[in-house]
Amino acid sequence: MRHLITPMDLSVEETMNILDLAERISIGPQLYKHVADGRQLATLFYEPSTRTRLSFESAMLSLGGQTLGFSSAAQSSASKGETVADTARVVSCYADIIAMRHPKEGAPLQASIYSRIPIINAGDGGHAHPTQTLIDMMTIRQRKGKLNNLTIGFCGDLKFGRTVHSLVSSLTRFSDNKFYFISPEELRIPDYLRDDVLNPSNSTYEEVSSLEDTLPKLDVLYMTRVQKERFFNEEEYLRLKDVYILDEEKLKLADKDMPVLHPLPRVDEISLDVDDDPRAAYFDQVQNGKYIRMALIMALLGITDPVTGRTVLDTHSL
Amino acid sequence: MRHLITPMDLSVEETMNILDLAERISIGPQLYKHVADGRQLATLFYEPSTRTRLSFESAMLSLGGQTLGFSSAAQSSASKGETVADTARVVSCYADIIAMRHPKEGAPLQASIYSRIPIINAGDGGHAHPTQTLIDMMTIRQRKGKLNNLTIGFCGDLKFGRTVHSLVSSLTRFSDNKFYFISPEELRIPDYLRDDVLNPSNSTYEEVSSLEDTLPKLDVLYMTRVQKERFFNEEEYLRLKDVYILDEEKLKLADKDMPVLHPLPRVDEISLDVDDDPRAAYFDQVQNGKYIRMALIMALLGITDPVTGRTVLDTHSL
Amino acid sequence: MRHLITPMDLSVEETMNILDLAERISIGPQLYKHVADGRQLATLFYEPSTRTRLSFESAMLSLGGQTLGFSSAAQSSASKGETVADTARVVSCYADIIAMRHPKEGAPLQASIYSRIPIINAGDGGHAHPTQTLIDMMTIRQRKGKLNNLTIGFCGDLKFGRTVHSLVSSLTRFSDNKFYFISPEELRIPDYLRDDVLNPSNSTYEEVSSLEDTLPKLDVLYMTRVQKERFFNEEEYLRLKDVYILDEEKLKLADKDMPVLHPLPRVDEISLDVDDDPRAAYFDQVQNGKYIRMALIMALLGITDPVTGRTVLDTHSL
Repeated sequence: MRHLITPMDLSVEETMNILDLAERISIGPQLYKHVADGRQLATLFYEPSTRTRLSFESAMLSLGGQTLGFSSAAQSSASKGETVADTARVVSCYADIIAMRHPKEGAPLQASIYSRIPIINAGDGGHAHPTQTLIDMMTIRQRKGKLNNLTIGFCGDLKFGRTVHSLVSSLTRFSDNKFYFISPEELRIPDYLRDDVLNPSNSTYEEVSSLEDTLPKLDVLYMTRVQKERFFNEEEYLRLKDVYILDEEKLKLADKDMPVLHPLPRVDEISLDVDDDPRAAYFDQVQNGKYIRMALIMALLGITDPVTGRTVLDTHSL
Repeated sequence: MRHLITPMDLSVEETMNILDLAERISIGPQLYKHVADGRQLATLFYEPSTRTRLSFESAMLSLGGQTLGFSSAAQSSASKGETVADTARVVSCYADIIAMRHPKEGAPLQASIYSRIPIINAGDGGHAHPTQTLIDMMTIRQRKGKLNNLTIGFCGDLKFGRTVHSLVSSLTRFSDNKFYFISPEELRIPDYLRDDVLNPSNSTYEEVSSLEDTLPKLDVLYMTRVQKERFFNEEEYLRLKDVYILDEEKLKLADKDMPVLHPLPRVDEISLDVDDDPRAAYFDQVQNGKYIRMALIMALLGITDPVTGRTVLDTHSL
Repeated sequence: MRHLITPMDLSVEETMNILDLAERISIGPQLYKHVADGRQLATLFYEPSTRTRLSFESAMLSLGGQTLGFSSAAQSSASKGETVADTARVVSCYADIIAMRHPKEGAPLQASIYSRIPIINAGDGGHAHPTQTLIDMMTIRQRKGKLNNLTIGFCGDLKFGRTVHSLVSSLTRFSDNKFYFISPEELRIPDYLRDDVLNPSNSTYEEVSSLEDTLPKLDVLYMTRVQKERFFNEEEYLRLKDVYILDEEKLKLADKDMPVLHPLPRVDEISLDVDDDPRAAYFDQVQNGKYIRMALIMALLGITDPVTGRTVLDTHSL
């Protein structure tokens, strides 16, 4: 049995297989609408995340499966003092696969040790959010045709933005990528990303502060929201949240094939006039999110792809 | 693509077509139990409303479709600062149709501008609640055989009661209806209903304060709850909520074919002894609510009625 | 139409029939996966209880049915002042069967008087939790082969623990059972259990305080959590919650075939090292919970068992 706790749980080959399956689903979703008949997905969300939860539920329903679960810790047995391990074991009796969101880093990993069914990490604190990373990769590959030899700018909150950390880690596995990290001093990438990911992989990267100066150099721009819930101090949040706002004016500086990604929700870091620009790729990401999750559910449940006649993961290999 | 934001989005002919479809569904629900197979309804409820949400979900499930969504704003991305427009666009990637409840007037309209899938307004602040209006019309037509040439009394909170405003507006489109508005001074109908709806349509109406004096004149009585959540002041609420209580004693004054409608939930404005009176129509309304919502989902999704072989709305006309 | 409000609503024969059906389902769940096609379960949870709610939902989905509902009172119409009776009547228009959890004793009974569809009590305050009792009986019968002539120890919070009261009541209907009640002075069984259940049935029982002294005498041990939410006083809770902790060391005193039951969630009254002991039966209970609820939904909806060709309950007998 396999789980997906961090994007690194998948080899590069497996990752590409998942992306390929997601592409096939996007082309002919009707071919997949009964592959998970009679299977149940439990969405265990210890903190609310509508977008992610609805995306998982929609994915499972579109495969013919069913869903059950909870959308906040207040509804869960955690309020009675139950451990995540016990909850995982209990839910193993009710469902076939779990998508777990948890404010505490490591909770899905802990759960996976005791679970009798596959667990997908749907975000654990500042740690990982592997389905988002796969979505980002799928969207970049759709727009640029490749995942290597790209210059990618990450802009905004690079300190707390886990989607940035996960995507950077994954992209270092592909050759000749260059990263620009655009942020205020206070929100720079954390040391571990520099010491454990970028330097060991001999990646080329620069830390800069000007979005305008960097835009012309980029193949891909990845914007992030400055997340209020990661700050202890309201003033600091207000000061930093509007430092980088992308609008059509600034986009004139960028290549006309440079996709703009954003994990959403956005507040005002991308102005509405960008939405109609063909470079805006953030609603593509949302649509890809459903396909990636359909592919992952199939992969982890070991469901045969009706198009290829094969399963995606060797579920015995890990 | 069509949305349903206010009852006036539907022509009189379209309204009658929806009511007719709902009647056909009520006669043979089993004929409709697979018409929405593989379709998904998203219930986006930014304020709790169990009755309405469950009714929509039950309607979709009874058509063979599936549901996903949230039941309060605390569970939604709104708490992260996302606009309704972005949420609508995102959910367009996950589902085929949206039922949206929002405390703010105009939110569903705003969402419909950006949505790529049909939106049904499931109540927006004090503004509109079009499915309730269709339910009320269906129930009146079942009981009285017509929607014109009726004397209809509205009793209770006529100031904040949006179901009253919507139903009155719809009934002015049918000929020769007369309205009695029975309320305390403080809860009279708002000016806009007088100036923009009743007077322009040359409707006959009277504003009165005695339920007992008015009851003998009525073909239909529409009771409302004095809604605590619309008041700023607890004292005022307590003083006004019990002014009109309908019981079997008072009902002796009414015609024996005068249906009693109420949008529910009731608190104590209709006493329990009325429930067994054949004139009590409020549980009929609940049952009709499911059929109306089944009909609307079919209509807005452009699903062919298996009984007539036709769709209900020309979805290209608006 | 039948409801299940307390375990005593079922005769001993009916109880055994439900357990037998649950066993058949556990052997061949795939034979039952379409028996409730097109039927809807409403889960009306006026207080959160993830485990119980998910178990009911999973049960209904595994029979081919569908679910809708709410998971806390904040999401329900109760917050607008609606009575349980009205809610039951309303939900009767939307669903085919109700599972109701309520903090107030008697609420499900009250609802059942007005409901037009079967209601299963999923726990009402300190009163009853009949599905848990059936689960406990199924698990004891699996482990010991019988429900009579057993020595059963109940340990922990025997005052507020309704699962204990319900199970004891049910077990007094079988011959020659003996009960040990192991608790601190403050958490002893309530008078009504002594006066109305144990003494009238001439049951043999002892109230003791030492788990160690009692363990060697037991055929079955039923542990309970000291529930914080039943206490008014935090200090008292903290003092009493750790009086009885079962670990592998203590289990050495017990028979090697003595199953350990617990209704879960546990906090720390059973240490983790017990989980791998073959006597640990509490995760069996979880799995049985799904089968029992599948059996009950079939029984109350009058669905024919495809294996026996018969329904389980004579739904006209009550």
